[in-house]
Amino acid sequence: MSAPHRAPSALLQSRRSPLLVFAGQSNRPLAHAICDHLGVPLGESTTEKFSNDNIIVHYEQSLREGDVFIVQTFSTPVSDSIMELMLMIDAAKSASAGRVTAVIPYYSYARSDKKDNPRISIAGRLIADLLQEAGADRILTMTLHAPQVHGFFKVPVDHLSADVVLAQHFKKSVPDAHNGVVLAPDAGSIKRASQIARRLDSGLAMIDKERLSDTEVRPRALIGDVDGKTVFIVDDEISTAGSLVETVNIARSMGAKDVYVAVTHGVYTGPAIQRIAALNVTQVASTNTVLVPQSKIDNAGGRLAVLDVAPLFANAIVNIHTGASVSTLFS
Amino acid sequence: MSAPHRAPSALLQSRRSPLLVFAGQSNRPLAHAICDHLGVPLGESTTEKFSNDNIIVHYEQSLREGDVFIVQTFSTPVSDSIMELMLMIDAAKSASAGRVTAVIPYYSYARSDKKDNPRISIAGRLIADLLQEAGADRILTMTLHAPQVHGFFKVPVDHLSADVVLAQHFKKSVPDAHNGVVLAPDAGSIKRASQIARRLDSGLAMIDKERLSDTEVRPRALIGDVDGKTVFIVDDEISTAGSLVETVNIARSMGAKDVYVAVTHGVYTGPAIQRIAALNVTQVASTNTVLVPQSKIDNAGGRLAVLDVAPLFANAIVNIHTGASVSTLFS
Amino acid sequence: MSAPHRAPSALLQSRRSPLLVFAGQSNRPLAHAICDHLGVPLGESTTEKFSNDNIIVHYEQSLREGDVFIVQTFSTPVSDSIMELMLMIDAAKSASAGRVTAVIPYYSYARSDKKDNPRISIAGRLIADLLQEAGADRILTMTLHAPQVHGFFKVPVDHLSADVVLAQHFKKSVPDAHNGVVLAPDAGSIKRASQIARRLDSGLAMIDKERLSDTEVRPRALIGDVDGKTVFIVDDEISTAGSLVETVNIARSMGAKDVYVAVTHGVYTGPAIQRIAALNVTQVASTNTVLVPQSKIDNAGGRLAVLDVAPLFANAIVNIHTGASVSTLFS
Amino acid sequence: MSAPHRAPSALLQSRRSPLLVFAGQSNRPLAHAICDHLGVPLGESTTEKFSNDNIIVHYEQSLREGDVFIVQTFSTPVSDSIMELMLMIDAAKSASAGRVTAVIPYYSYARSDKKDNPRISIAGRLIADLLQEAGADRILTMTLHAPQVHGFFKVPVDHLSADVVLAQHFKKSVPDAHNGVVLAPDAGSIKRASQIARRLDSGLAMIDKERLSDTEVRPRALIGDVDGKTVFIVDDEISTAGSLVETVNIARSMGAKDVYVAVTHGVYTGPAIQRIAALNVTQVASTNTVLVPQSKIDNAGGRLAVLDVAPLFANAIVNIHTGASVSTLFS
Amino acid sequence: MSAPHRAPSALLQSRRSPLLVFAGQSNRPLAHAICDHLGVPLGESTTEKFSNDNIIVHYEQSLREGDVFIVQTFSTPVSDSIMELMLMIDAAKSASAGRVTAVIPYYSYARSDKKDNPRISIAGRLIADLLQEAGADRILTMTLHAPQVHGFFKVPVDHLSADVVLAQHFKKSVPDAHNGVVLAPDAGSIKRASQIARRLDSGLAMIDKERLSDTEVRPRALIGDVDGKTVFIVDDEISTAGSLVETVNIARSMGAKDVYVAVTHGVYTGPAIQRIAALNVTQVASTNTVLVPQSKIDNAGGRLAVLDVAPLFANAIVNIHTGASVSTLFS
Amino acid sequence: MSAPHRAPSALLQSRRSPLLVFAGQSNRPLAHAICDHLGVPLGESTTEKFSNDNIIVHYEQSLREGDVFIVQTFSTPVSDSIMELMLMIDAAKSASAGRVTAVIPYYSYARSDKKDNPRISIAGRLIADLLQEAGADRILTMTLHAPQVHGFFKVPVDHLSADVVLAQHFKKSVPDAHNGVVLAPDAGSIKRASQIARRLDSGLAMIDKERLSDTEVRPRALIGDVDGKTVFIVDDEISTAGSLVETVNIARSMGAKDVYVAVTHGVYTGPAIQRIAALNVTQVASTNTVLVPQSKIDNAGGRLAVLDVAPLFANAIVNIHTGASVSTLFS
Repeated sequence: MSAPHRAPSALLQSRRSPLLVFAGQSNRPLAHAICDHLGVPLGESTTEKFSNDNIIVHYEQSLREGDVFIVQTFSTPVSDSIMELMLMIDAAKSASAGRVTAVIPYYSYARSDKKDNPRISIAGRLIADLLQEAGADRILTMTLHAPQVHGFFKVPVDHLSADVVLAQHFKKSVPDAHNGVVLAPDAGSIKRASQIARRLDSGLAMIDKERLSDTEVRPRALIGDVDGKTVFIVDDEISTAGSLVETVNIARSMGAKDVYVAVTHGVYTGPAIQRIAALNVTQVASTNTVLVPQSKIDNAGGRLAVLDVAPLFANAIVNIHTGASVSTLFS
Repeated sequence: MSAPHRAPSALLQSRRSPLLVFAGQSNRPLAHAICDHLGVPLGESTTEKFSNDNIIVHYEQSLREGDVFIVQTFSTPVSDSIMELMLMIDAAKSASAGRVTAVIPYYSYARSDKKDNPRISIAGRLIADLLQEAGADRILTMTLHAPQVHGFFKVPVDHLSADVVLAQHFKKSVPDAHNGVVLAPDAGSIKRASQIARRLDSGLAMIDKERLSDTEVRPRALIGDVDGKTVFIVDDEISTAGSLVETVNIARSMGAKDVYVAVTHGVYTGPAIQRIAALNVTQVASTNTVLVPQSKIDNAGGRLAVLDVAPLFANAIVNIHTGASVSTLFS
Repeated sequence: MSAPHRAPSALLQSRRSPLLVFAGQSNRPLAHAICDHLGVPLGESTTEKFSNDNIIVHYEQSLREGDVFIVQTFSTPVSDSIMELMLMIDAAKSASAGRVTAVIPYYSYARSDKKDNPRISIAGRLIADLLQEAGADRILTMTLHAPQVHGFFKVPVDHLSADVVLAQHFKKSVPDAHNGVVLAPDAGSIKRASQIARRLDSGLAMIDKERLSDTEVRPRALIGDVDGKTVFIVDDEISTAGSLVETVNIARSMGAKDVYVAVTHGVYTGPAIQRIAALNVTQVASTNTVLVPQSKIDNAGGRLAVLDVAPLFANAIVNIHTGASVSTLFS
Repeated sequence: MSAPHRAPSALLQSRRSPLLVFAGQSNRPLAHAICDHLGVPLGESTTEKFSNDNIIVHYEQSLREGDVFIVQTFSTPVSDSIMELMLMIDAAKSASAGRVTAVIPYYSYARSDKKDNPRISIAGRLIADLLQEAGADRILTMTLHAPQVHGFFKVPVDHLSADVVLAQHFKKSVPDAHNGVVLAPDAGSIKRASQIARRLDSGLAMIDKERLSDTEVRPRALIGDVDGKTVFIVDDEISTAGSLVETVNIARSMGAKDVYVAVTHGVYTGPAIQRIAALNVTQVASTNTVLVPQSKIDNAGGRLAVLDVAPLFANAIVNIHTGASVSTLFS
Repeated sequence: MSAPHRAPSALLQSRRSPLLVFAGQSNRPLAHAICDHLGVPLGESTTEKFSNDNIIVHYEQSLREGDVFIVQTFSTPVSDSIMELMLMIDAAKSASAGRVTAVIPYYSYARSDKKDNPRISIAGRLIADLLQEAGADRILTMTLHAPQVHGFFKVPVDHLSADVVLAQHFKKSVPDAHNGVVLAPDAGSIKRASQIARRLDSGLAMIDKERLSDTEVRPRALIGDVDGKTVFIVDDEISTAGSLVETVNIARSMGAKDVYVAVTHGVYTGPAIQRIAALNVTQVASTNTVLVPQSKIDNAGGRLAVLDVAPLFANAIVNIHTGASVSTLFS
Repeated sequence: MSAPHRAPSALLQSRRSPLLVFAGQSNRPLAHAICDHLGVPLGESTTEKFSNDNIIVHYEQSLREGDVFIVQTFSTPVSDSIMELMLMIDAAKSASAGRVTAVIPYYSYARSDKKDNPRISIAGRLIADLLQEAGADRILTMTLHAPQVHGFFKVPVDHLSADVVLAQHFKKSVPDAHNGVVLAPDAGSIKRASQIARRLDSGLAMIDKERLSDTEVRPRALIGDVDGKTVFIVDDEISTAGSLVETVNIARSMGAKDVYVAVTHGVYTGPAIQRIAALNVTQVASTNTVLVPQSKIDNAGGRLAVLDVAPLFANAIVNIHTGASVSTLFS
């Protein structure tokens, strides 16, 4: 991927419908960063809550015929984030927006992607249906928990990957990364781990886990060999970091030398930052799909790095807007 | 309305599909009260949050072919309440429930029922569409902000009224209620006030308000006469009680004698309880469509009364389940 | 609102798709007036009835990719008007129109907006669904019976108001209108009355009515004070004028001085014109959303005035066509 | 087909959901006749028009969970008939009817079944979509103009034929019918004519017509031989009888002996009865799918016969209600 | 119709969205011929089968915002042709094509257009629904078995006719065609025959057939007169030619002089070519809506002519793309 | 799982609607086996092809109000299998079936579950949408390629697993299975392999593969240890067995002792049987979701075993029909 650069405004103005980018409340710094790369101002809108806790959104500028992108990540409080996004989509459509693309850097409900228990909802599909019912014409997102979640949507989806960013970060951090081993914390992340391993030209290993109950999971074994090696743990997200601590401990107990961690979505809830501060790893890196406040970075003992994916989103938006191919963007 | 009584179980068992009542987290005491009236146990289900703030719902019993009712009021946190309800509906449908009725005692977004500003969402319609997309086969609700909101739904709606309960409460409290005046706090509640006035055989008055901006409203005048009279203020809901304080003050300044207040939905957010405790009224009554914790009642200086509408919901559920007419229930 | 003027054709030609305006049979003079303001000819189409009373519509010119507006008001015979409109929408879509906007100056079924009886249709919602099923991409209408009816449509609606026109008419007729009182004939029109009152800076009053049965309604009281004052009666529509006669009588009996009447939709059916000719009022004004034949005006004893809303519709169409904001049109 | 007889009520009561038959205003005598055959009373409902010409329908009895059949033929005024039917369907659904079957003996718009001109509506498909949008779960109809119109509906259709009734009528009238010739008035009715010819074991002939313009059609030739023979003219409907007069004249000019006419739908509009009274034929027979007032029969000079199809509809309703096969009814 | 000529590329480039034509595997020579007339290259795509017989389609070039036409005829193997088309439509939509038109020269399932047996599918409607569900925005097709099949589609359909081509071919082959007779092989093709007869100014005749069972059909009679005349047999398609042989034999037995045959769709399956080679006719002509391999032409004993309809499709595509009227194309 | 036994017919008759099982042409022996377990006859239907290769399906018995299950596996020719199933669903719905469940033992397109290339279709989602559009009310299937494919369907899905059957087969074949190693041929099957490993209490290993191009895949490494151990290769399906040969070779080269193979879907196309006959394994087992002709078994050198899953499908059908829980079936 060549270094991202500001999109030439001539290109953006060559289309009939104006490019308009708005954002909900969940990650406005990312939206601003995307707009900076696009060379357009972030659209003016307000979101308030009535005294009965109802959300009200209001666009402060005309959207008629516009090519509207609404940036909203699904971070805490997630229900408010989703509801605000749907209200924004609906308001945009009824205000005669030409096309509405929901830009969802972190689609949290992608984890609810199958029926591993009876009588539950495959919520990743339900939320997809709701967004479309609200009026979303297309979706732009990053690193869905499983690639099949793409198929939960009927409207076109552009599904970005942070793999390049993560692999480049590892390579920069560890010059002889090809001697290391990428470790998948469980079977669900083995495909992603395998792809990073190929980018690093490194080895691969996996922890085999056993689900004891709805909430309890127990590691059975580490498949592969990490003894004496630099270990790269990759996953799609970190929330409480409980599973990460366990993975690191297993890797350490099997003789891992240095341990580096990189995930796409750094959710960091509950004791996560405290655990990372105490973790026996060189670094934990994640992207800014979820907003990480400076206070968390400060409290993580210097171990936390946040990688910027705004250029990837900006490029994708340009290509969607101008009708260029998104698939040729990153090679 | 005759006194509600337990539904004969023979009746409930006469149908092919079993009657199943479940509840979200927003008002389980009401759900239990409804089930007590129905003579059925509240269905077993669990709702949890994953560490990334995603909601997961799980039914602990089979729903196949069941006639499922899910009780969920839209109270704080409203977005979670709505999302939990949609997940429960979806999970019920995919678990092969025969029919799913969403029982929404307080449909908060009914207040977003028109476009009084450009570029906003008519959220009352949007949420209706989302609930239907999630799979709701019918709706049971009470005192929508405007009766037209009924028409936002395509599926059948049973729209209960608390007017009988409120009017009976006034009559019991004030034997010569027919000498009083029902006061509508604004034009939007004049129809409801007029109906109560007829039930009490009393007078009617209204405060004419002027909207100065999105958030500011100013009273222009009190239309009608309250001087020296017992005043009954009726509305659909109280949230911060700010508008209520103003209405009471105007009524007092125009010479009102005793003031009674009754609303369907007692939301009581922010300074509401404190304001009511200090309010120059004899009593503020609301129903249990929204859960009012005992602590709030205790702090309201003895002025707060909570009226029970569980029998109305139970009767409606029986009639929906058995195919009897809901419209003949309350006369 | 500044005086309406012909839209500059340069503006209208600046868009890719041509602006095409057609009309059904219900109010072709209004359609011609709108086209005059737009500076475009009324599109050529024919509507006939087969001998079995089936309607057949036929466009005489190509609509491919056009931005099509179809003007049809819902006046007698209403069923034919609706059916013709749906046939025109369907024929336009299947003839590859780019976008079809149904321009419905008087959406008569807006009065069927709630379930005030069991086992009836909320026909305002049903007709909305049918129009969308027929292919309407958006709606342009005026003064819906209740503003919530807007939410019966899923497609974007531009909802014009005649309030400015009516208020200006009162002001022109009665220089000291601010000393008068706006009288709402019933609770349903109090909001509209209140808004006109604010525009006139006048007082407000209302007649409280009681529904005795499906067809009988009885006035209970006049809330407010009209004694010795000029009274402005405002409502959304007049059909037989029966209710208007009653309202005028009550106002007179309470001491009203001069009485002026203004409504948006002058339907004038049955004995309406005869009643107005005999009515003790200075003037009855309505707009041309419904066609009022000259013979009716002649028979109304000089009391009937018809105000022109074609400029408002023309301006709205220009703004929809060019993607400008309709909400900023009228201030 | 065996002689129709009253359905045993035990059978009708053996189903969970009650059988309920209602009717619009278009052909209540047929609805009563069907109910007589079914042994059930015609359901109570009212239809009125508001003074603004809006239709309001109201069911006077509960429909909850009922198996509802609504009889409405599409006769003049057709738009009112369709609108009333859609309002009845919608009201039934929102009143919680279990299933709604639209019984449309004469589906007039079936004639608008193709695009024989550009920029027209295939109205037979549009009306089908509208009925389904209004909530129709299934359709019961008779003798669609073309059998393909069946495919315009997505919901199940039971498509009855009056051919047996018409053929039996011919046989009864003309003992040596097998020596006659069935004459199709145009190419569109040749298939129906051919089927009747086989039932009569008679000959077949057809008039070839040429469409000169939208409204003008000219006969080119009579294909086949009618000279000296009894001629049976069959068609799906007669409206003004203009085309019938022409067909009879051609047949006569080609030497036809006696002429008999039978159609399914006797619409008889405009000069039809007058023309038939003057027509050189032995008899014109049609069924009661469309109501023929006694006055018309009286004025037709003894030539008009009305055949009863109520038993066919009653049998079909029984079979639909009980889940028996409709296709085995008539052989 | 003027001679088709290459579309001026200026015209094709004057539109915002690029014109893109792709083709499935069923008739690529026709697609190439259409592209030649359009002056655009056939789009690059690949279709393969996985080892489990699943089809995979892949576009080799960007389709974003394109005006995409996909040419696919429904010839053997038909199920593969339909499935491939639906996969191509879906892939195009999810690759952000602006509009997708399915160009189906031979819509084979149009023959399944009615319920002539109980418990079968009206497959012509089902396939129409499936194509629309897959994402088809419009359809371009030729000579549907019955014109009503047009109404099976909700999206716009351009329905071309090969009648001009066939009639011109007859005229060229037989200078005194007006002395001949057009013979319809059964009632279903009489309308088409009648139209050709008018173009030739010739006579008309028809064979009346009787369906004995699902698979057996028996001719009853030839209606009209072919004795000593040149006979033109026209139909929509020939598959095994079994029915054609019978028609020719009947015509011959009734004294027909020369016999010419022309159909739109030359499917030629099973013994068709062998039968035609042995048939007592001057010529059998059909168009290239279905690909006729040279070997078949060679084996048909010089009797087989293939007429080119690529110019008609090319002209229609130009007009759809540029928004011109298709209906004015052929006169 | 207890041994499957015939369902008591009393149970099956206790429901209002009759249980009806039909089958397409793809795997009628399995359908017969399921019916044997259910104690009901396989429903009578016929499927034929017209001479133009169109499929026609016909039910020979009434389906009105029936609870219809249609068994159709997606095996070669897959497009015909899918099309036949959709025609059967549509015909059943239009013949008034009460509910239609598509029983698809092998849903082949589940492999097209993500966008691993731009401009392809996620065909697993497309086919799901088509089946629902055709009218499928629910789906019963087994071992989808990825569990997320469940979420491609909006209607309820019962997703059976053959894991118990496969694990039991291994245990029966190899008494000390717990000393063996389950080998996943690639990352996509690691979860399934891990689950089998837990059932066997055995080790786990995986082959890491690298995709070089659309069609070329290269093994990078075997993660884990198989040296000297009995190896159990598990996957969801075998088609050409090319990948299987490679997996076995790698396992052998890494020192595997005995090798056993078990997959759910034995598709066995092309050179599969020949390769298995020559393969250095003890046994290859698969289930009868896809029909394996006796000739293939005979040619596989005694290595091929077919396990019966009819009891699992029969039990699931009973539970769906009677409203019991399917999730409690297999533990």
